[in-house]
Amino acid sequence: GSLSTIEKSPPKPRREQTVLTIDTMNPTVKKVEYAVRGPIVQRAMELEKELSEGMKKPFAEVIKANIGDAHAMGQQPITFFRQVLALCSYPELLNDSTFPEDAKSRARRILQSCGGNSMGSYSASQGIDSVRHDVARYIKRRDDGVPCDPDNIYLTTGASDGIVTMLKLLVCGEGATRTGIMISIPQYPLYSAALAELGAVQINYYLNEQKCWSLDISELQRSLDEARQHCNPRALCIINPGNPTGQVQSRQCIEDVIRFAAKERLFLMADEVYQDNVYAEGCQFHSFKKVLFEMGPEYSNTVELVSFHSTSKCYMGECGFRGGYMEIINLDSEVKAQLTKLVSVRLCPPVPGQALMDLVVNPPQPGEPSHEKFIKERTTTLCALAEKAKLTEQVLNTVQGISCNPVQGAMYSFPCITIPEKAIKEATDNGQKPDMFYCMKLLEETGICLVPGSGFGQRDGTYHFRMTILPPKDKLKILLTKVKEFHQKFTQQYS
Amino acid sequence: GSLSTIEKSPPKPRREQTVLTIDTMNPTVKKVEYAVRGPIVQRAMELEKELSEGMKKPFAEVIKANIGDAHAMGQQPITFFRQVLALCSYPELLNDSTFPEDAKSRARRILQSCGGNSMGSYSASQGIDSVRHDVARYIKRRDDGVPCDPDNIYLTTGASDGIVTMLKLLVCGEGATRTGIMISIPQYPLYSAALAELGAVQINYYLNEQKCWSLDISELQRSLDEARQHCNPRALCIINPGNPTGQVQSRQCIEDVIRFAAKERLFLMADEVYQDNVYAEGCQFHSFKKVLFEMGPEYSNTVELVSFHSTSKCYMGECGFRGGYMEIINLDSEVKAQLTKLVSVRLCPPVPGQALMDLVVNPPQPGEPSHEKFIKERTTTLCALAEKAKLTEQVLNTVQGISCNPVQGAMYSFPCITIPEKAIKEATDNGQKPDMFYCMKLLEETGICLVPGSGFGQRDGTYHFRMTILPPKDKLKILLTKVKEFHQKFTQQYS
Repeated sequence: GSLSTIEKSPPKPRREQTVLTIDTMNPTVKKVEYAVRGPIVQRAMELEKELSEGMKKPFAEVIKANIGDAHAMGQQPITFFRQVLALCSYPELLNDSTFPEDAKSRARRILQSCGGNSMGSYSASQGIDSVRHDVARYIKRRDDGVPCDPDNIYLTTGASDGIVTMLKLLVCGEGATRTGIMISIPQYPLYSAALAELGAVQINYYLNEQKCWSLDISELQRSLDEARQHCNPRALCIINPGNPTGQVQSRQCIEDVIRFAAKERLFLMADEVYQDNVYAEGCQFHSFKKVLFEMGPEYSNTVELVSFHSTSKCYMGECGFRGGYMEIINLDSEVKAQLTKLVSVRLCPPVPGQALMDLVVNPPQPGEPSHEKFIKERTTTLCALAEKAKLTEQVLNTVQGISCNPVQGAMYSFPCITIPEKAIKEATDNGQKPDMFYCMKLLEETGICLVPGSGFGQRDGTYHFRMTILPPKDKLKILLTKVKEFHQKFTQQYS
Repeated sequence: GSLSTIEKSPPKPRREQTVLTIDTMNPTVKKVEYAVRGPIVQRAMELEKELSEGMKKPFAEVIKANIGDAHAMGQQPITFFRQVLALCSYPELLNDSTFPEDAKSRARRILQSCGGNSMGSYSASQGIDSVRHDVARYIKRRDDGVPCDPDNIYLTTGASDGIVTMLKLLVCGEGATRTGIMISIPQYPLYSAALAELGAVQINYYLNEQKCWSLDISELQRSLDEARQHCNPRALCIINPGNPTGQVQSRQCIEDVIRFAAKERLFLMADEVYQDNVYAEGCQFHSFKKVLFEMGPEYSNTVELVSFHSTSKCYMGECGFRGGYMEIINLDSEVKAQLTKLVSVRLCPPVPGQALMDLVVNPPQPGEPSHEKFIKERTTTLCALAEKAKLTEQVLNTVQGISCNPVQGAMYSFPCITIPEKAIKEATDNGQKPDMFYCMKLLEETGICLVPGSGFGQRDGTYHFRMTILPPKDKLKILLTKVKEFHQKFTQQYS
């Protein structure tokens, strides 16, 4: 949409003169799909615009529970992080006595690592040296002393950037030797989108919904064996804690996966961006790196692993800064040189995002002036998320026709929904997937924006939606009630 | 390099067990080259490290004139921009009376456009709505009233991101129908790197060094006709003001290029990131958009054009924030929908970079408290650059065997250097390109880091280097003197 004072584009050129058309564009780009920002979100944005223009709707506001965008849902940033970012942006503030000393010393340290002491300089393409060292120290601490080499750390533009870069390195071959990449179903659609764009073969393995979305090695084996008939499977992607499932993998499961990867010679990609988002009792985050090293040199010296982290999730939720890192383990040194070259073409990840990543891995320490406040803010956010995870599961499970696994971690519920046959038929007749039909109706009637399960993948004949647990508790309650009422009405209407 | 307290990686896995090796990785990635951050820069970083560890060298510091990284060379950021960024990062500062009111109102406006009033939220994938409107107003003002539709603006992660995205859309076909993209020689190596990665055909057209690196239509025609024998040329890339040439195109030249693109049905890509960097008398920046619209509807309704801009160059030099935008003209509406989908996979450009882009296109206005200071800072920076452009040309042209075109704009000189036959032979015997041999020797002997012309492309048998004009004047003088002395010594040594 454009303001009325600004001119619209001139009429579009006639088709036969046009160089770039839908028929002559890159065919792999056409295959890309990304449901989290797909048609349902575009419609939600239209509805918001119509509401703001005074149009009447059966709801007063659009509630976006489609994407893990914590601050947009009212979560507050960590004060210390933002103080340091302000100091780095405008170093005059280092003379301001209202800023705590630890924020100032952190800002000075970051600025000293920047060319000309400015966040406006390019950094090394792999990331600022001191930040990579801080990341390495964080990982070592997190993993109970397992060594971490800062040379193995690459800062990234959010985790997505790192994931796409690593997939890019892995893709080669044609036809039956084309690279295949194993991803969970349901998955986070960045993976399917990147594989489509790279022309790699997507190999699906199904998570076990009956066992709380856990991963079965027998299913990995089935999936791999079938894929070997038609492509060259080279990597196995894991999201833990799970997106969209909210499942947290057990230590045993991770060990089994590593053993499987070693046996089958698969490159492991561990998406661990929700590592601080673990809520359920008895669940704990185990990094793939730590488990790998605890399995001894037979594994830790051979299995190739990359792990991704980001500033966007956990208790900080700073998506807009596009900060992240990846750690590579056992990457061949010649390939590592190629990786370093490849990332240099994009010059460097955004420096404010790098600074933020540094603060995440090196937050205020006990005894520092900002420590107490930091701990309080972090705890408040994580406790609220835990409470909302529980609430979401509980309320959804009171609805006949909705069945929701415990939200053990991450930021999403992915309940199974029963869609009546009549609704399935109406959707199919309209060329729409039944869960898209369901979510679109929910949006039009209640203003609630969820993502259909088909955007993440699901077993044929089952239907789901992904819903974030991020809205503030009061709003989440309203949202859950509305979903409940909608589902009952929808079921009745189509029975 | 890593600190001694941090463990090094475990021994590398044996090759036969390794999934990802140089022989089994993506072959297109291997073909990528990016000289601006290539081996010479890696060596410069090693030398810096050795100096910092107290190792003796024939120089006291490494001077990096290899990359357009203004702040790293001591250029100061614009105060107003940094004040607004600090306010957006830490909105508590909106209560601080020391910040000017216009900075506060700008910050409030940006924050109001962010989800939850936080830069930590994702923005729309195309960019923040209000920023795109500000960009559209800026373009209309810049182009003397030529209309600009905010729907045609896409914010990007630096200009590089936009360039790669547009190239990606254009690539298709195989063998003799594979997409070819015309790029200038010399070029900015992002283009060759992106084309290598995408597997597109690079079509070289040579700029005319004898005519101050200007573009000849006859050379475009020659290049295109030859390319049509073996590929499908679809787009023509222009960098104006030129990188690495520093040339500023005349209005007539731009009109001729547009006519050529229309006649030959080529998609135009105009890299205009140096639009404020014009120094030479009689030279002026003309945007491709403006010239296109002045040529009347026969052209303005049909020629497909995309123009790129960034926060990294001009008077602001804020490379680290990775801000940028592109404007698309006459892009087919179905392709535009595909573009919007494609950028959504990466969620959004960094929000601080978007905020900065907003400030660049909407700086303090006359009558606002920060206006005077802003104008003063901008003028100071641009005048200093103009002076250094002149100085560089003058000093280099005093050296026998170096011939330097006027640096009309941008931030680089790209002089032609005479390398003695004996040096060429020694380099070739060592498997090194002669200009790489020259630049490597310069680095080892003087600490000055330049980029060999071969990284940008040059006519066979000619040699160049690219040198930024960014070091502070005093340092630039020393640098130029050292280059002069080195060249004389080198010439003598190999004669």
